[in-house]
Amino acid sequence: MSIAKVLSDLDLRKEDSLSKLFEFLRIKSISTDLHYKEDCRSAANWIGNEISNLGLSVKNYDIGDHPIVFGASPNPNKSKPTYLFYGHYDVQPPDPTELWEFNPFEPKILNRGGKQVIHGRGSSDDKGQILTFFEACRSFLNIYKELPFNLKVLIEGEEECGSPSTSEFLKENKNLLTCDYALICDTGFEQGRPSIFTMLRGEVSLRIKIKAATTDLHSGLYGGAATNPIKALSSIINNIHDKNGRIQIPNFYDDVISLNKNQKEQWASLNFDEKKFLNDVGLSSSAGEKHYSIIENLWSRPSCEITGISGGYAGKGFKTIIPAEAFANISFRLVKDQNPEKIKTCFRNFVRNMLPNDCKVSFIEGFGTRASVVSSKSKIISVAKEALIEEWGVVPILAGAGASIPIVTDLKDILGVDSLLIGFGKDEDNIHAPNEQYELESFFKGANTWARIIEKLKLN
Amino acid sequence: MSIAKVLSDLDLRKEDSLSKLFEFLRIKSISTDLHYKEDCRSAANWIGNEISNLGLSVKNYDIGDHPIVFGASPNPNKSKPTYLFYGHYDVQPPDPTELWEFNPFEPKILNRGGKQVIHGRGSSDDKGQILTFFEACRSFLNIYKELPFNLKVLIEGEEECGSPSTSEFLKENKNLLTCDYALICDTGFEQGRPSIFTMLRGEVSLRIKIKAATTDLHSGLYGGAATNPIKALSSIINNIHDKNGRIQIPNFYDDVISLNKNQKEQWASLNFDEKKFLNDVGLSSSAGEKHYSIIENLWSRPSCEITGISGGYAGKGFKTIIPAEAFANISFRLVKDQNPEKIKTCFRNFVRNMLPNDCKVSFIEGFGTRASVVSSKSKIISVAKEALIEEWGVVPILAGAGASIPIVTDLKDILGVDSLLIGFGKDEDNIHAPNEQYELESFFKGANTWARIIEKLKLN
Repeated sequence: MSIAKVLSDLDLRKEDSLSKLFEFLRIKSISTDLHYKEDCRSAANWIGNEISNLGLSVKNYDIGDHPIVFGASPNPNKSKPTYLFYGHYDVQPPDPTELWEFNPFEPKILNRGGKQVIHGRGSSDDKGQILTFFEACRSFLNIYKELPFNLKVLIEGEEECGSPSTSEFLKENKNLLTCDYALICDTGFEQGRPSIFTMLRGEVSLRIKIKAATTDLHSGLYGGAATNPIKALSSIINNIHDKNGRIQIPNFYDDVISLNKNQKEQWASLNFDEKKFLNDVGLSSSAGEKHYSIIENLWSRPSCEITGISGGYAGKGFKTIIPAEAFANISFRLVKDQNPEKIKTCFRNFVRNMLPNDCKVSFIEGFGTRASVVSSKSKIISVAKEALIEEWGVVPILAGAGASIPIVTDLKDILGVDSLLIGFGKDEDNIHAPNEQYELESFFKGANTWARIIEKLKLN
Repeated sequence: MSIAKVLSDLDLRKEDSLSKLFEFLRIKSISTDLHYKEDCRSAANWIGNEISNLGLSVKNYDIGDHPIVFGASPNPNKSKPTYLFYGHYDVQPPDPTELWEFNPFEPKILNRGGKQVIHGRGSSDDKGQILTFFEACRSFLNIYKELPFNLKVLIEGEEECGSPSTSEFLKENKNLLTCDYALICDTGFEQGRPSIFTMLRGEVSLRIKIKAATTDLHSGLYGGAATNPIKALSSIINNIHDKNGRIQIPNFYDDVISLNKNQKEQWASLNFDEKKFLNDVGLSSSAGEKHYSIIENLWSRPSCEITGISGGYAGKGFKTIIPAEAFANISFRLVKDQNPEKIKTCFRNFVRNMLPNDCKVSFIEGFGTRASVVSSKSKIISVAKEALIEEWGVVPILAGAGASIPIVTDLKDILGVDSLLIGFGKDEDNIHAPNEQYELESFFKGANTWARIIEKLKLN
């Protein structure tokens, strides 16, 4: 036997796969609007049935507004590894509906921009993507009768609302969820090339308050004598970066590892259009660390942004005060091995050392998550890489992402497992926007890719 | 004849003066609360009657919520100068009333801190003070039958609400108000010594907006690549002052004149308690220009304060954004000869020169008023100085004030006249607070002081 049989089965079932996806896309599973609560339950049941048809025991968990669907092999084989597949059945609202060319919940195949695409809300995010995995499993089972691993499946219905219940579910069901690796199909191509996301930055957020006088003071009666906490705060902010964009907080870079040469070369070869990336948001030059490309800055370098500032009265009109207090919210993005607690300590020390006389500082701590980095040498990554090369004929990008993906962080923090992040979305898919689409090629070749991965895991 | 007769008349009428003041203090002329609208009108009529008894024609002008009382000599003598006396009949609300030792509107004489004081709302601010002038006029007329100048009187009823109607009144009645000099009795002693306020700082306010990207950006997806307008704003603010507290805006100090030696020595001789001034508001060291005392900084040096700042989200919790915009409100205090328009231009140029790539700035302009500075050599100042020496036995301070007094600015800007600012209030008077008081000595010797000034104006 060979992978050919599995791919052939997928090919034979193309029409069938597509009509299943259309069924799924017709369900208005808009999680943010409780008017669609029953539709969300229908979507949960629909995907639960699909999973059940793969031989898994399925149960809905009602924790939040919409059920979490969990399935697992009823008789796991202890000699095989266990993989947990994660995805979501909920979709974004279609508003503004008047901008859709066709009904967002009546999917159809269109020729758009020279490509055959599946038009409809959720086609790319994430219904089409999760079916690529299940259709691959289906064909693999049709040929081999069993998967080369014990499969667990977690499909949630609140991802588009920020997954408020998923962390709780993971924490309360650790044993149920035990696995060796997570598989996630909710990402896309980078620069037109298949991509495996191996580096996601972590984050630390802190709120600082600088207090000077005991009360707001009259800017005439005290101006030029009293300490102004806005000036103190501005000075601190102004000193975070040097003129080359490097963060000057002592020990901040201690655990930052240089990008290896291969990775650097691969990213350089992407010919990432920096000008367009900036122009699209009205900017023209990178504000990041000099000597690093934008991709390097975003994917492999830590950053510090002031996400908010306030103090005194900055509205229309004027209040003649020297305020007693000023606030700033700070967000650090972390890379491999940077420890959120250490970064907080470094920052607190940096601020305290810069504090002028008559100012006091207090810190309110937000969340802190480590970066999520998967070694490009790990088995699952090399397997996925080979599969992508075979199916798409190009070497995939080992990509990074500037922002963390909460589920990936939770899977790592709560279950201790790394995630394989691949997906077949394109920039043109209009996710979260009108006229969402998923290329027919993404759907079919996506399923082929998963089939190849499963086959390789069997052979390994 | 001599001043002795006038002073003797004042002395004989002491009980009468005091009972008049008590009548005035019993009127609840709380301008900010329209529940007391009729009381304000009563106070206007009461003071109008007093002015009328001095032989002036009096008229109420109903422009705002409470009447402006205006009086003028019916048959002015063109060979005499014309003086305009300004004051206000309205008072602050007495809240919190439970902190008053006695009814705020039932005045009484108390012994407090070893001094005889008049207890009651408005006793010091400003009913007691304005009666010192009118009682002096009364006695002068009793002896001489006429004043050595044409008198005009402007008593408003909205000073405690920011004088919203007075500018308009001045603008619309310039001819009516024509005068050579204004006399104002609404200030107090500085450092326990009689004071003439000859320097009030001016003010310029500006709001600046720094805009970078066209929209708020995700701090993960853009952090370390996109320009952050809060950083740009912080850098500008941080560069306004050098480490010695000197403002680094080019040409900012062009029109600032050094304090003359006499003035500097007089202020130094005050032994102003800098430590207490700062400690009272929770501070310990001056943030002003090094090499200048706090009094010098507040009274004779310009300042720049950030009165407010905002950008992004600085509330509780965190928003992972790089904001598109950031704002700051800036207040400059100006000293002699600094031109508000020039200062605005210097600041705009300074900001534009510091603006990093990809940032745009826009300015929203607030008010701009010149400093008000009266030459210590002007006739009225030397007359007042002599009168204060004779009455109080000490050389008065030629004092400054960090903040402008709007009526002084308006009188200068609209009518082109300078103001003599003297008054007999003390730090312990609790103006705007519970248990307002006015020293009996301030009331009686205040009237004597005005009598001496009027007498000297006659002789000159």
